[in-house]
Amino acid sequence: MASNKAEAAAAAPPRALTLHRAYRGKIQMMAKAPLRSYGDLALWYTPGVADASRAIARNPDDVYELTNRANTIAIISDGSRVLGLGDIGPEAGLPVMEGKALLFKHFGGIDAVPLCIRPQAPQEIAAFARAIAPSVGAINLEDISAPKCFRLLDDLRGNCEVPVWHDDQQGTATVVLAALLNALEVTGKRMDSVRIALIGIGAANMAVYRLLRAEGLSGEQFIACDSRGILHRGRADISHARDTFQEKWQVCEETNPETITGGIAEALRGADVCIAFSQPGPETIPAQAVSGMAARAIVFACANPVPEILPEAAKAAGVAIIATGRSDFPNQVNNCLAFPGVFRGVLDVRARRISDGMARAAAHALMQCGRRAGLSETALLPRADEIDVAASVAAATGVAACREGAARIVLDADNLFNQAVTAITAARKAMDALIDGGCIAPLPD
Amino acid sequence: MASNKAEAAAAAPPRALTLHRAYRGKIQMMAKAPLRSYGDLALWYTPGVADASRAIARNPDDVYELTNRANTIAIISDGSRVLGLGDIGPEAGLPVMEGKALLFKHFGGIDAVPLCIRPQAPQEIAAFARAIAPSVGAINLEDISAPKCFRLLDDLRGNCEVPVWHDDQQGTATVVLAALLNALEVTGKRMDSVRIALIGIGAANMAVYRLLRAEGLSGEQFIACDSRGILHRGRADISHARDTFQEKWQVCEETNPETITGGIAEALRGADVCIAFSQPGPETIPAQAVSGMAARAIVFACANPVPEILPEAAKAAGVAIIATGRSDFPNQVNNCLAFPGVFRGVLDVRARRISDGMARAAAHALMQCGRRAGLSETALLPRADEIDVAASVAAATGVAACREGAARIVLDADNLFNQAVTAITAARKAMDALIDGGCIAPLPD
Repeated sequence: MASNKAEAAAAAPPRALTLHRAYRGKIQMMAKAPLRSYGDLALWYTPGVADASRAIARNPDDVYELTNRANTIAIISDGSRVLGLGDIGPEAGLPVMEGKALLFKHFGGIDAVPLCIRPQAPQEIAAFARAIAPSVGAINLEDISAPKCFRLLDDLRGNCEVPVWHDDQQGTATVVLAALLNALEVTGKRMDSVRIALIGIGAANMAVYRLLRAEGLSGEQFIACDSRGILHRGRADISHARDTFQEKWQVCEETNPETITGGIAEALRGADVCIAFSQPGPETIPAQAVSGMAARAIVFACANPVPEILPEAAKAAGVAIIATGRSDFPNQVNNCLAFPGVFRGVLDVRARRISDGMARAAAHALMQCGRRAGLSETALLPRADEIDVAASVAAATGVAACREGAARIVLDADNLFNQAVTAITAARKAMDALIDGGCIAPLPD
Repeated sequence: MASNKAEAAAAAPPRALTLHRAYRGKIQMMAKAPLRSYGDLALWYTPGVADASRAIARNPDDVYELTNRANTIAIISDGSRVLGLGDIGPEAGLPVMEGKALLFKHFGGIDAVPLCIRPQAPQEIAAFARAIAPSVGAINLEDISAPKCFRLLDDLRGNCEVPVWHDDQQGTATVVLAALLNALEVTGKRMDSVRIALIGIGAANMAVYRLLRAEGLSGEQFIACDSRGILHRGRADISHARDTFQEKWQVCEETNPETITGGIAEALRGADVCIAFSQPGPETIPAQAVSGMAARAIVFACANPVPEILPEAAKAAGVAIIATGRSDFPNQVNNCLAFPGVFRGVLDVRARRISDGMARAAAHALMQCGRRAGLSETALLPRADEIDVAASVAAATGVAACREGAARIVLDADNLFNQAVTAITAARKAMDALIDGGCIAPLPD
């Protein structure tokens, strides 16, 4: 939930801290096979296990059949940009990665191992990811600061044995695309003619820009704005450091054809859509700037814990649709809607990569789930905890991988959907069994 | 169970392979905290989790209280020496590491993450271990070939944020020491005067040698033998490559004061004890060589799947005690007796390292467990599945760490014993709950 992580920075209830201390962790290792007698050891360890090892030595793909690799991913973070808390290090990132692992299990039936690591250099993080690849089916990068997260993802997407995804980039962009498709539907705007202002151009909005370009939008439909103002070809601060800021420089070159200068107000003037992943509000985006947008405007104000503009203020300024990262307002842009299903699909077709096409397919599946649930200005997206949402995303992602030739197991949408439902249902049943069996204490009142 | 891994190489029943394929893995991630409603997400993920992250950012030691780090270890292997199967790679090592993780949970109540990695160079493996350290309480190295495992362990023992243990070295040596102490008791021999022949001088016996030296034996009590014969100062093949074989060269310098040459027969002549970790038998050690040993001789023939000499042949050749790596003969030298308790103790006192003194304390606890169970020539060691064995080892290891100033939490033996019993009991109860709840299928008949 990159998009609403910094909800974090809100004055969270002491209850969460108390509970973290009481449970001492949110995730544990557990048997997947029964071990009840000393004799069972001969099956699962020596001498029996050698047969599994020998089979894999003969045919490496058997590792997906004879171990849990096919259902296992690594969550890798260096702790350099945790929630909205910044560079607080790997230890402080661990509660978040454990939480994410809990969500992977609950929403996707996926075994995610939280790995918060000491190295901070992108080449070292990449080396770590490549080192661990033989043990996992895919890798989720998390909470790694920009711009190094761009280098890292580009490097690993092209050069890793297993698919790699950076949820703060791709997961966020996938959910934004789904929400945008439905917002356009509700407002009667067309994708090929909307004008979009991107406020903040870090990991999230850079990925949003890239995915919308992959969806078919032209660069000229965008105008982007960072903390120093609108991006354009004359931004010397970026062009002079274009090795470091190569993505930003590309945005300078591709967008803003009229070379508009200024700040947020100028960027929003006449825009149909504002997508903001910038600084916490409530007045990062002034109401007056929003009132300069086109008719039936769409605003995604995704900063956490406080949106760049509060829904009430945005509505008063005349927007048709306002979405935020918050669960207590309508239209929550929540990565939970995407990553469990995307990884479920990727694992089930044993995909070689996660392409933009697969992310777009996931977004379109989410769009459809939202439409089936009934679209309105305050209901763009479905709920993340409905099993058929993750299962639909899994099916769409997996089918896209098959279509692109990126799948090592070809399955149709129905099979993928049903497998996902089975996996998610089993994960929830297991948690219930542990709670009901007295192995996990229920939450205190 | 380094010592009996190569049992592996035996013609294992197809049943084990069939079951590996049916269960698709032996270990999974599982919730440790309850997540039952969408609202619980606000406690375990955003916004609540930020309180835990902030607390750790302020006080890094809080990571042990607010996450599962205090109960988590990494099992790291490069797959370069898996069971008795040799260098079969990380994928083929994964079933073994998953099995080991299952044992860590069942016998120690410990969450062990199997990490089979691609890099093979010792400095890269060390870098990987250091990278992962912030997420774990300790590291277990496994199935890494000699001599690189020596370099790796020496490097990491001196330079890693968390304690590091190589089970094939230290775990094996700990169990051998316990068995030897009881074998000497049964045969009426004295530690300070026994003569010991080490047959095979790889990772296991090198660690046995080092731990027995730490126990107080002098180098002059030993004679060692590798595949080329007895080690002595004139072994040019070793002295010419002493950078690579520094441990072996040290053995050449410290042992065999009479510069005896020859092979196994010469090494055993007059020896009280034979400790063999060499090539599978049944006639790696000829009966005739054994009959040249001292009266009431002790033979540990630990090769797997077939001991260097079979118990029956050893008995016929006149030995008093024969131990092997096999579960189907008396006196199984089984690493399961040591590693769960050692790590339990290390985690519970939050030890900074695992010293030889702690390994010796663990061995003496095992020795006592064996004596309480009733010593005889065919009963040197207790059973690994009795909870009080692991708990006794945990208590002894933890107390030794406290005594050495290596503990960050000082606990007494009773507390450590009780904590261990609680952790192990909880782990077994959880597995039972999953089986009884229909979440893990019972073994088919």
